[in-house]
Amino acid sequence: MEHFLSTKKLSTEEIFSLLDRAENFSKYGSRELPGKYIVSNLFFEPSTRTKMSFEVAERKLGLDVIPFESGFSSALKGETLYDTVKTFEAIGVDALVIRHSDEGYYEELIGRTSVSIINGGDGSGQHPTQSLLDLFTIREEFGTFEGLNIVIAGDIAHSRVAKSNADTLTRLGAHVTFLCPKEWKGNFEAVHEWNVEMLQSDVVMLLRVQHERHDGKLTFTKEAYHDQYGLTVERAKKMKENAIIMHPAPFNRGVEIDEDLIECRKSRIFNQMENGVYVRMAILEAILNGRN
Amino acid sequence: MEHFLSTKKLSTEEIFSLLDRAENFSKYGSRELPGKYIVSNLFFEPSTRTKMSFEVAERKLGLDVIPFESGFSSALKGETLYDTVKTFEAIGVDALVIRHSDEGYYEELIGRTSVSIINGGDGSGQHPTQSLLDLFTIREEFGTFEGLNIVIAGDIAHSRVAKSNADTLTRLGAHVTFLCPKEWKGNFEAVHEWNVEMLQSDVVMLLRVQHERHDGKLTFTKEAYHDQYGLTVERAKKMKENAIIMHPAPFNRGVEIDEDLIECRKSRIFNQMENGVYVRMAILEAILNGRN
Amino acid sequence: MEHFLSTKKLSTEEIFSLLDRAENFSKYGSRELPGKYIVSNLFFEPSTRTKMSFEVAERKLGLDVIPFESGFSSALKGETLYDTVKTFEAIGVDALVIRHSDEGYYEELIGRTSVSIINGGDGSGQHPTQSLLDLFTIREEFGTFEGLNIVIAGDIAHSRVAKSNADTLTRLGAHVTFLCPKEWKGNFEAVHEWNVEMLQSDVVMLLRVQHERHDGKLTFTKEAYHDQYGLTVERAKKMKENAIIMHPAPFNRGVEIDEDLIECRKSRIFNQMENGVYVRMAILEAILNGRN
Repeated sequence: MEHFLSTKKLSTEEIFSLLDRAENFSKYGSRELPGKYIVSNLFFEPSTRTKMSFEVAERKLGLDVIPFESGFSSALKGETLYDTVKTFEAIGVDALVIRHSDEGYYEELIGRTSVSIINGGDGSGQHPTQSLLDLFTIREEFGTFEGLNIVIAGDIAHSRVAKSNADTLTRLGAHVTFLCPKEWKGNFEAVHEWNVEMLQSDVVMLLRVQHERHDGKLTFTKEAYHDQYGLTVERAKKMKENAIIMHPAPFNRGVEIDEDLIECRKSRIFNQMENGVYVRMAILEAILNGRN
Repeated sequence: MEHFLSTKKLSTEEIFSLLDRAENFSKYGSRELPGKYIVSNLFFEPSTRTKMSFEVAERKLGLDVIPFESGFSSALKGETLYDTVKTFEAIGVDALVIRHSDEGYYEELIGRTSVSIINGGDGSGQHPTQSLLDLFTIREEFGTFEGLNIVIAGDIAHSRVAKSNADTLTRLGAHVTFLCPKEWKGNFEAVHEWNVEMLQSDVVMLLRVQHERHDGKLTFTKEAYHDQYGLTVERAKKMKENAIIMHPAPFNRGVEIDEDLIECRKSRIFNQMENGVYVRMAILEAILNGRN
Repeated sequence: MEHFLSTKKLSTEEIFSLLDRAENFSKYGSRELPGKYIVSNLFFEPSTRTKMSFEVAERKLGLDVIPFESGFSSALKGETLYDTVKTFEAIGVDALVIRHSDEGYYEELIGRTSVSIINGGDGSGQHPTQSLLDLFTIREEFGTFEGLNIVIAGDIAHSRVAKSNADTLTRLGAHVTFLCPKEWKGNFEAVHEWNVEMLQSDVVMLLRVQHERHDGKLTFTKEAYHDQYGLTVERAKKMKENAIIMHPAPFNRGVEIDEDLIECRKSRIFNQMENGVYVRMAILEAILNGRN
């Protein structure tokens, strides 16, 4: 694999191969890659989970990690992303994990650099490593994707997680329903209130209300969102015995999910974070092995 | 040892055991711990010395260190400290060094996370690793704490160093006197001017005037503070032959201490910094060995 | 070598010895230094290239690198550079790479610290590691410096690159001509327009127009600068067959250099970046070996 950019560019075989490899890492822990590799994580948008997860994955593979502070680089002097990437290529970096606010930022890079690019999130585009960790978590639970019913609830239009997951889950045989306020459906088909059928899904995946993107323009309060679209304790009680709750985090306690559900028996939220390290190890390994 | 939070939770045996181990590191240098450990330093308040000291200690023990920029994390998206810590737990971090502006920030974490917490300073609460390095420096000099006379001069009420040290030094048999302006004594008993007896102490420990906490509200100038409460060259001349001068740094030259005394023969200020690495190695080792 | 501060302090023998060692690294790649060394990169001004280049060089030598965020350190509490450096000395750091806005910032440090200082750029003073990588790139191309004609075009007065290079190149036998607007010549002799002879040089080295230093005060537009002083496609066509184009980067596309020339056959811009890693490895090696 040369780059890891979008779930759309992944074949089903590639997905399963990465999941198998991630499973291996989850069982047997760290494994230093043969050969010396240098990577860097270029996060032009704030992140804890994704960046930290990559940082841990990189160290478990024994990689050298070059620190990059986006707020203190030549980007401040007006340097383009292309020129920044070419700089990393010139100084001998093998792979870059990039999160950037421009959807499809990587299009201008591909074919023009020998550095491998791993997409850590592109604007309102995709978040393919998150998708892979969600797949890992679902497969770990149910052993398959075929015939699973999955509700994804939240800001569908702006969520790269929703888009990446809808793509992969549908391809793998699951049935995905979007739930959201009308204003947030974008170009997608969505329902706008919870019903019994949805609560009987196998997976309820909640998305973060991105207050910072909507500030001042929200037509509902946090409480109203929680009542209408959030996973309340009431609703969680109606879920199937073996159903699970997922959330990419960071979460707003009491908004998209009731505080008491975050660490409940059905919740896989912290398992998702743990699994994120394994899938990122698998992706880095596939990319770096592909460079020899 | 599971966590390292406050000198109050340390028994005398634990203190001496850590000091002995630190002495060993001071003599024999680096030592890679058996086993792979991942740690991170979460400093939500500015720091050079404490953070750098931990960073060096961690590398001398061969640990993997995950970088954390508090100004660029999901804390910006309103994430609580608890959720941030649970994230680090999920991705496989073994120990976190945390400095946070809330006194006792760790209370809500203990018992709810399997990550080991090392307190790098909690608001106006404690700074227990600083206390341990001060103890190390004093023991290195005098071989004992019994019967030593120690003056701690400065902003007692706001100083976590004063509190941690008063606790430990008294327990170990030293006699501690606080010197400060009336406004800064807090709930402590303190004297408000230098006298001959105090200048005949074995240790004069000066605290930094925290201009950034008092800005605009100080009832005295820097010069007036220096004259009344600072260690002037004049006063230093009256100190005992074998007495030492300590300061946790960063120091304000010419305020709490005369510029000429910082690197004088009696000063142990830079030795304290050096010793900080050894005691932090000892603490990290005790914590991480305790995880097996 | 104890410190690496200015090209003026380097003998011709030292320059050639470092270039030879860098050439060795360019051929044979990474090489872990015997012994454990701890270094830190103190960049008080923004940088991508120089800082990243050092970070890569340090890892290729197997050094431990202590992260330093200038915006989040005790410098915020008013600590002097001297006190920051003494802190790093106390905690056991062997060498510091420092970029600072004060010209000659290192003068107050030399002789007062046992830490080795490597100058990563001092205000409008020098940028000696850049100079060394430029020398490396030129020697790689022409095998010698004797008799080469070199044009350096741009903001001569404010450029530390121009100053460092003029010094070394002249000493090594090359003939250097400065080209710039009258306002930017400082104390140097310079010509103010391109002529045929200059276009027949062996090396055309362009400097970045530092918009952030001149903002609002420039008497010409970007387009006018490009037309009068920049390397246009037109001018590049008149260059000698074997001549090369250099630029320390980051570059302003379409200002000091036409966009189409950045990656043209004559351009050595990205080779310069690559070579930067090798010369910095050579410098670090010379400094650290000198500490035993």
